[in-house]
Amino acid sequence: MPVGAAHIAVHDMPDEFELIRRLAATQRGVREDVVLGIGDDGAVLAPTRVSELVAVCDTLVAGRHFPLDTDAFAIGWKALAVNLSDLAAMGAMPQWALLALTLPERDAAWVERFGTGFAALAKMSSVALVGGDTTRGPLTITVTALGAVASGRALRRDGAQVGDHVCIAGVLGEAALGLRAVQAQRRDDPAFAHCIARLDRPEPQLALGQALVGIASACIDVSDGLVADLGHVAIASGVGIRLDLDAIPHPPFELGARLGLDARTIVDLALGGGDDYLLAFTLDPAQIDEVRERVAALGLDLRDIGVVVPGAGVSLITREGGDYVPARAGFNHFGNDDGE
Amino acid sequence: MPVGAAHIAVHDMPDEFELIRRLAATQRGVREDVVLGIGDDGAVLAPTRVSELVAVCDTLVAGRHFPLDTDAFAIGWKALAVNLSDLAAMGAMPQWALLALTLPERDAAWVERFGTGFAALAKMSSVALVGGDTTRGPLTITVTALGAVASGRALRRDGAQVGDHVCIAGVLGEAALGLRAVQAQRRDDPAFAHCIARLDRPEPQLALGQALVGIASACIDVSDGLVADLGHVAIASGVGIRLDLDAIPHPPFELGARLGLDARTIVDLALGGGDDYLLAFTLDPAQIDEVRERVAALGLDLRDIGVVVPGAGVSLITREGGDYVPARAGFNHFGNDDGE
Repeated sequence: MPVGAAHIAVHDMPDEFELIRRLAATQRGVREDVVLGIGDDGAVLAPTRVSELVAVCDTLVAGRHFPLDTDAFAIGWKALAVNLSDLAAMGAMPQWALLALTLPERDAAWVERFGTGFAALAKMSSVALVGGDTTRGPLTITVTALGAVASGRALRRDGAQVGDHVCIAGVLGEAALGLRAVQAQRRDDPAFAHCIARLDRPEPQLALGQALVGIASACIDVSDGLVADLGHVAIASGVGIRLDLDAIPHPPFELGARLGLDARTIVDLALGGGDDYLLAFTLDPAQIDEVRERVAALGLDLRDIGVVVPGAGVSLITREGGDYVPARAGFNHFGNDDGE
Repeated sequence: MPVGAAHIAVHDMPDEFELIRRLAATQRGVREDVVLGIGDDGAVLAPTRVSELVAVCDTLVAGRHFPLDTDAFAIGWKALAVNLSDLAAMGAMPQWALLALTLPERDAAWVERFGTGFAALAKMSSVALVGGDTTRGPLTITVTALGAVASGRALRRDGAQVGDHVCIAGVLGEAALGLRAVQAQRRDDPAFAHCIARLDRPEPQLALGQALVGIASACIDVSDGLVADLGHVAIASGVGIRLDLDAIPHPPFELGARLGLDARTIVDLALGGGDDYLLAFTLDPAQIDEVRERVAALGLDLRDIGVVVPGAGVSLITREGGDYVPARAGFNHFGNDDGE
């Protein structure tokens, strides 16, 4: 990699960029608020006048955030999904995305498949790809996504009140179990198809986040693990959170058994396996019935998994009233802010 | 790099992120339009009501876009600078930035120095760092920058008219010569201090870009090389561009001679060495005097380097009227759109 040569043209993968440009073009017209898209020094966008802008940014590194043998379609999808999940957690409506793609080699087929996955979710979510950069180097993908939320109404981490209930709308630990299945070479086993789909093509809960605007007192994306992420809510809100272990939805124990995983491991995957692109949120108990209806209208099932209590940190209790301490090392983050 | 472990916490460099958070905090209060900065799932920003939003995104890969021995301060500065130069080329006023930092190891001193460089330019340019991501992997930095431009007034590539003059306001090829000096182990030679500073700490022409809004018919950042980038303007505008070789400002030939570079090489560095974070723009000749005054008020010197002609592509003529064909391979891009 001669540094001098790179300085001739910083943006040195024209073919791939041309491909992405073509893929982006398939979305042209999707959004009328794109004044000028890909092809100039910058994109020009027309923010909604009564809204605030929400900006999020996440990077995926090959071999670290996804297995090296992941299909390029899934990587493209997921690179956008992890960002849209952050927008969902803010209650924002997604609008635009920028894609920085660092690739080890010119592989037009890979880029096309990557772009197709990215575009599939973008189309589904009314997101326009408006800019980005392609560079040569170890496979790394950074997406910045922008969205709108009514002024002053963004969902935040710092509003949880003592007495609120903690809720989610989905099953936790599925992606982590899907990863175990992939690692055990069971990618083609239909029993794991659902969990592997959750790993490869997570569907950000955008409609849910928007439905919670003005209702939820706090909201967060739990992709770093339920307990770790609720720890952020606890710190930001200055409260404690007590979770009811038996109320936390997890994959069937039988499915784990097929991989030789015991029940406790499955529960721990649900508590902290990560890669669950679900929202956790806090609600005044008086609003739960109304929210349950709204959530049902989205085809989701509201799960009431705990309460906000005075104090600090996240604790887990069993139905018998005992404390539960997960076995995994990840949980020494308990109640600590371990960063973004 | 165990994939499974990474799934416990996607954002796995808490110490460094904490550092960046602290650095970002030093800029708190710089901008009142940051409703919610670093520390939630997303940043909440208040766009100016009468403006459009300009979004740009650029990646730097270690060993490719900067020499591996570059000081971390310079890398931090430059990662923001390359983006601000794109905003400048759109005529935008920068507001916010998001930083995705992929690092091979936990090195707090490096991050602190990187962050200090980033923050130095951010402060100078009134940019607030509002979000980002830190991940483990090969050193790669992606910055997304956002800015504002009055609605409908962004400077674009596609407005150059036949008869317009092509102008710049600065000397070309200095960064490329600085790189040659670094490669020749002359980093400490005071003769090259200016050129190396242009390489390491380019100053985006933000005030110039804003001064050109409503005046320049087209504008572009020439960081990929003057001729290559003007080729983009020619294509986008459907015109040809004829440059006056003798009018193009380049570093002194004596400086090149110190590195054993001949005059022709110096001229070629000015034409396509790259890493010049300068704007090239086209002006109706009737406006040149007014622009020259505005540019002088910014402490810059307007250089009239060519004209927009019917046809296509970029050509170079000498004062004697002969055609000049640069020697470097990079110039087979001549007049071709070689992508972003």
